[in-house]
Amino acid sequence: MKEAVVLLSGGLDSTTVLYIARDRGYRCNCLIFDYGQRHRKEIRQAVKIAKRAKCDYRVIKIPFPWQGSSLLDKNTKLPSNRSAENMAENIPSTYVPARNTVFLSIAAGWAETLVADAIFIGANAIDFSGYPDCRPEYFEAYNKLLREGTRIGLEEKPITIEAPLIDKKKSEIIKIGSGLMAPYGLTWSCYEGRRRPCLVCDACLLRKKGFEEAGLEDPLMEACYGRAKG
Amino acid sequence: MKEAVVLLSGGLDSTTVLYIARDRGYRCNCLIFDYGQRHRKEIRQAVKIAKRAKCDYRVIKIPFPWQGSSLLDKNTKLPSNRSAENMAENIPSTYVPARNTVFLSIAAGWAETLVADAIFIGANAIDFSGYPDCRPEYFEAYNKLLREGTRIGLEEKPITIEAPLIDKKKSEIIKIGSGLMAPYGLTWSCYEGRRRPCLVCDACLLRKKGFEEAGLEDPLMEACYGRAKG
Repeated sequence: MKEAVVLLSGGLDSTTVLYIARDRGYRCNCLIFDYGQRHRKEIRQAVKIAKRAKCDYRVIKIPFPWQGSSLLDKNTKLPSNRSAENMAENIPSTYVPARNTVFLSIAAGWAETLVADAIFIGANAIDFSGYPDCRPEYFEAYNKLLREGTRIGLEEKPITIEAPLIDKKKSEIIKIGSGLMAPYGLTWSCYEGRRRPCLVCDACLLRKKGFEEAGLEDPLMEACYGRAKG
Repeated sequence: MKEAVVLLSGGLDSTTVLYIARDRGYRCNCLIFDYGQRHRKEIRQAVKIAKRAKCDYRVIKIPFPWQGSSLLDKNTKLPSNRSAENMAENIPSTYVPARNTVFLSIAAGWAETLVADAIFIGANAIDFSGYPDCRPEYFEAYNKLLREGTRIGLEEKPITIEAPLIDKKKSEIIKIGSGLMAPYGLTWSCYEGRRRPCLVCDACLLRKKGFEEAGLEDPLMEACYGRAKG
């Protein structure tokens, strides 16, 4: 059986990717990071999703040695109510330096230990938030690094990074995941960790637009706000 | 003033690199990892070296999610009394999957936060222990990744990885460091963390050969075993 490490954040994209990997026949090992996020809700949801998918999982605590990102620091302001154009053009304050580089490196270590074939990540370059480490060129460079920098890479069995959502719009992602019965009601996108999504941060806005364009109901909205706002 | 993050293990090579970076005019920020090594002696020594060099430093604890390396697991046997040919040709049991990839990724995050110019690492490909992540091709691939995957990389101020010992023999490293007054008496190379170096592991053998070829006394040997064995 093919084996994969799947980066699982508890959000909509990484949950979709987990269900894509399962659908492609991979035994999935979910890697969940506790890296000082503003809230722990997404970690709790990620664990629930891994259990629902009946996958092995690990929660890895990384004390990131940097400050200044609004994603990590509760005292800085999150961007809100930004237009799609603004989101596409400006790297926001939620940017965490080298975050995917760190996550993928630890995934690579686990994947090499498992002699796994692939690492799955939910990055996408379309409805993304302007992060440099979510672009195809970045993943190409990382695949080259894994060929050079791992024992199994040199021995002609490289680990490849799979980013199956890289060129997908949010609405397409939602359609794919819904078709695979991904448990979107368990996912959490909002940058805030309150009881209900804030509806104004970048992540909430992208999610709302995605479900609208897909013509589907968001089960999380239904659960949190009832049908009226869904 | 130019700024750098320096990976400091407490060993001879990384200490030399710290003194090279200082000599080149960099303000140095030392990154020390606590990643479940067999012993904590090298961490304590690294802290002493950073203090001696009057540098800022951080000790970052990373719970590596893998097992099986003799460098991490006290229950596995370390290689001992290997010949130079054997060391050059076989990746030993001390190999930790993707270790440098993880270390450099966290260094990249810190470097980007500091708006630093460089990351210094003490890897070398000559008297190395057969690790894939100590070769020039690997560092070239990592530099490409940092250009693609960081905000300051995209903004034309990339962080570059400097491995000034990559093509140096151990004896040359020791000559360079001695000339820069690197405090070799504080460094620790042995894979074991006992009071005195074991003298039979790969690291001890390479160190001994290096000092002999350089025609210099090892101040650590002097301190631990007295002049007779130095």
